[in-house]
Amino acid sequence: MLILGIDPGTATTGYGLIEKTGQKITPVEYSCWRTPAGLPMPQRLLMLSEFLEEVLGKYSPSHLVVEELFFNRNVTTVISVGQARGVILLAAAKYKIPAYEYTPLQVKQAVAGYGKATKQQVQYMVKAILGLKECPKPDDTADALAIGICHAFTIR
Amino acid sequence: MLILGIDPGTATTGYGLIEKTGQKITPVEYSCWRTPAGLPMPQRLLMLSEFLEEVLGKYSPSHLVVEELFFNRNVTTVISVGQARGVILLAAAKYKIPAYEYTPLQVKQAVAGYGKATKQQVQYMVKAILGLKECPKPDDTADALAIGICHAFTIR
Repeated sequence: MLILGIDPGTATTGYGLIEKTGQKITPVEYSCWRTPAGLPMPQRLLMLSEFLEEVLGKYSPSHLVVEELFFNRNVTTVISVGQARGVILLAAAKYKIPAYEYTPLQVKQAVAGYGKATKQQVQYMVKAILGLKECPKPDDTADALAIGICHAFTIR
Repeated sequence: MLILGIDPGTATTGYGLIEKTGQKITPVEYSCWRTPAGLPMPQRLLMLSEFLEEVLGKYSPSHLVVEELFFNRNVTTVISVGQARGVILLAAAKYKIPAYEYTPLQVKQAVAGYGKATKQQVQYMVKAILGLKECPKPDDTADALAIGICHAFTIR
């Protein structure tokens, strides 16, 4: 089963594609999509949509997973993340890929075994679970992989 | 010049298409798109996107106008309106239609001549400016027309 985890943003969207075979989880492709700050919002969303559709078309993941939006972030961030999420969920529907959401607490609990785990602890576990030599950079990519791993651990 | 004003939401999105010829503004088509509450968010966003693309394909409006997101609404609303806005701005970029934003204050000032105008005063002016017998219902449709009128009055 191919799982695509996404950490959405209009500036940087991390993504991580992992394969779950039995109990084994292996990384397939992970990186991040960036859109130029100077570009108007509609064009940035279009770039994000095209990046995502390229990956969806290439790999046809079975599931798409995003983090539930944080309520206590600043509102400008919530709006821009919300807009990016809209574009991502739309692509999931277009490609008929079921979309799942987890809270940051659920992700920490599933990946690091502890809901109050630090970012470093989660990143350490991502590295260990996927058998990587280094933790993926930037944080958005590591977060995207963590969301995907959370889903892989949660579904039967 | 054809202007499409939109009041975004995932449950109800109002839209109003108006034609500006010299100083004259006439209504072309206005209504709202609804998506069923029981449907998962990705499917609701896909429906919204298809409704919108149908109007964009049919009329090829010159400009698309949305209201700037309110910062003092509740955060759940901000997230869901943000996701709907993402889908709308994406469609604008896909169809190469420039998108504009106005604050609620700017809309009231432009349409009713007074930044603290009530909803009723704005709706009365929408009816009067477009020469309609009744104010368009629901409020989302009237709001979408008001945003379009604001833009028609603002651009030269």
